[in-house]
Amino acid sequence: MGDLLVRNVGRLVTMAGAPISDAAVVIRAGHVVWTGPQSDLPAGDDLPSYDAGGACVIPGFVDPHTHLVWAGSRREEFLARLAGTAYDGGGIRTTVEATRAAATDELIDLALTRLRAMLANGTTTVEVKTGYGLSTDDELRLLDITRAIADRTPLQVDATYLGAHVVPPERDRDDYVLEVVATIPAAREHGAVWCDVFCDTGAFTVDETRRIFAAAGQAGMGLRIHAEQLEHTGAAALAAEMGCASADHLERITADDARALAAADVTAVLLPTAALSLGHKGSAHVRLLREAGVRLALATDCNPGTSWCESMPYVIQLACLEFGLSVAEAFEAATSGSAAALRRDDVGHLTVGARGDIAVLAAEHEADVVAHLGGRAVDVTIVGGVPWLADA
Amino acid sequence: MGDLLVRNVGRLVTMAGAPISDAAVVIRAGHVVWTGPQSDLPAGDDLPSYDAGGACVIPGFVDPHTHLVWAGSRREEFLARLAGTAYDGGGIRTTVEATRAAATDELIDLALTRLRAMLANGTTTVEVKTGYGLSTDDELRLLDITRAIADRTPLQVDATYLGAHVVPPERDRDDYVLEVVATIPAAREHGAVWCDVFCDTGAFTVDETRRIFAAAGQAGMGLRIHAEQLEHTGAAALAAEMGCASADHLERITADDARALAAADVTAVLLPTAALSLGHKGSAHVRLLREAGVRLALATDCNPGTSWCESMPYVIQLACLEFGLSVAEAFEAATSGSAAALRRDDVGHLTVGARGDIAVLAAEHEADVVAHLGGRAVDVTIVGGVPWLADA
Repeated sequence: MGDLLVRNVGRLVTMAGAPISDAAVVIRAGHVVWTGPQSDLPAGDDLPSYDAGGACVIPGFVDPHTHLVWAGSRREEFLARLAGTAYDGGGIRTTVEATRAAATDELIDLALTRLRAMLANGTTTVEVKTGYGLSTDDELRLLDITRAIADRTPLQVDATYLGAHVVPPERDRDDYVLEVVATIPAAREHGAVWCDVFCDTGAFTVDETRRIFAAAGQAGMGLRIHAEQLEHTGAAALAAEMGCASADHLERITADDARALAAADVTAVLLPTAALSLGHKGSAHVRLLREAGVRLALATDCNPGTSWCESMPYVIQLACLEFGLSVAEAFEAATSGSAAALRRDDVGHLTVGARGDIAVLAAEHEADVVAHLGGRAVDVTIVGGVPWLADA
Repeated sequence: MGDLLVRNVGRLVTMAGAPISDAAVVIRAGHVVWTGPQSDLPAGDDLPSYDAGGACVIPGFVDPHTHLVWAGSRREEFLARLAGTAYDGGGIRTTVEATRAAATDELIDLALTRLRAMLANGTTTVEVKTGYGLSTDDELRLLDITRAIADRTPLQVDATYLGAHVVPPERDRDDYVLEVVATIPAAREHGAVWCDVFCDTGAFTVDETRRIFAAAGQAGMGLRIHAEQLEHTGAAALAAEMGCASADHLERITADDARALAAADVTAVLLPTAALSLGHKGSAHVRLLREAGVRLALATDCNPGTSWCESMPYVIQLACLEFGLSVAEAFEAATSGSAAALRRDDVGHLTVGARGDIAVLAAEHEADVVAHLGGRAVDVTIVGGVPWLADA
């Protein structure tokens, strides 16, 4: 956690109030202590300084939905999907097999490579789900790996237990749900602060999800849910009923679902890269969510099968161009909205007291990051007041 | 133009025949003299060598449709389009004003920055259109700038005269068409090997285009056309009638148009980033082109208003995920197909005799470049046998 003066900021977007031109940010002990026009910068002792070169500066991105720890490839499945040919490569089960078979050090190295890519793209807080273990021992190993990578990266990492990703093929369904419930206290001890369930056709039912969430709540874990992605199952209504921090995907929601999410203060995590990869066209769900006043967040859904992506700027581009968000809405969703999805108020904005987590954009204005397709979006990411260099 | 042994190629995609595993490429005096399995590599004198580290190696991308030389920003127009608010920022005319006002050195620097981004993304041959000058003197200046940047980059650059981009607001329409025709011989002398017309509603009619093309053909220039993007005007049929090398955009074509293009051997240049930016959904035109057997190419359409993009890998991702191309079709379109759009047979493939222009992908398989959304696609670009380093 460092001290830093970020100066020569052409445009400072704090996510609280209007952008400030020709601004500066003062960070002490890793937290923001002052923002404002550079001409008003208080006199004081010398701080190390970073010259933003007139660039646009925003809070570091918060990525509240990733499946970061995996081994193996889903290339054959991807090729078949694009070629329009039938292929049952096993989907998530393919990744479960490869992940179970991989050495712990290999999984750590693979996840750290992905985290470095996230950091290079301006992400400073990330949620990481299990879900490619699907047995008590394998799931707890993934949580231990998540703690290991959290210790070896400057990013803030929230661990999520997703034992209820799919029913592993070798297991009886009811037995497996019982095992997920029984594993929850150990998952909490191994660092999981969240419990997630893939509540959809082909995964877990609303009733099964309710049982798992009840146990997770008793263990002191927060709740989040994969909801209404493939079919409408009632998962969004359950999220509202049980007070989930977020409901994610939501392509199949109804207007009633959206109103329930808004009333229960559930944040909607939009995953446009997953929608693109799966060929889900349209943005009707986004319109319903906006009309109901649901808080919006954005995430990469980083996973090997349906959204191999570490880049929040890429997600923001798609959110604007495919889901119809305005530039301001998309950047708010990817920072303060995504922080709300993790129930955090220390990140996602740059008001006094926030963590000194900053993305210095490779642009004078955040709109240029959206318009410049395939361009470099982030020059430097600052975490807790420490500029992160790609080669460090 | 260099000598180089590219070794340790995990997968070599030459665009002629099946991919070769564990391969090597030998380049002498800038041209491919041997490809094959590394175990069959002929003994010979020592060449400088580049270790591809097991990566997938493909021909350098050919980008056959760019508007590379411009100054100014279209940010306000972009923001308004995303916000859904009315805005007549002037479109192309905004860029014409800024480009006319910019110093030649500034335009050269801006274009070189974009060319460096293209090179970093694996492009080795690029077409560059004028069209932001719109007077004889301003258009010829843009051609001179194109020659200047061609001299200062390792990329192959084809210059295109696009005086017929739009009618400049200060000019009488018929007078301006006469000026475009009258400028053609000088444009040829200033290096334009192609003549392009934006033949669409709001730009030039089919009859005006025919007159311009007749003059360009007499001057020895090849023909290419912006066709059937905004409305169906008959531009594709004209392209077939007059033997254009390429017809570009084509979102509004009919089945008859597609058959005419195929019969006349006109290459269809698809521009998926422009379609995304303008909210043109769907891929019906691609289906018609494939059914008719039209040769497909891909390009960035790099321009400040509707496709600010230097990245052929990004274009390939969208071509697969939005336009429904298979991975193999998309890479073929972006290399040998795009070479055909420029009527070149020395690039876009890696058979013996081709230029030693190569993209070393940051992946073991080209499919991973499509699946890895927002990921780094290219490790190193080799031009004429010389590896290009980002900091060089």
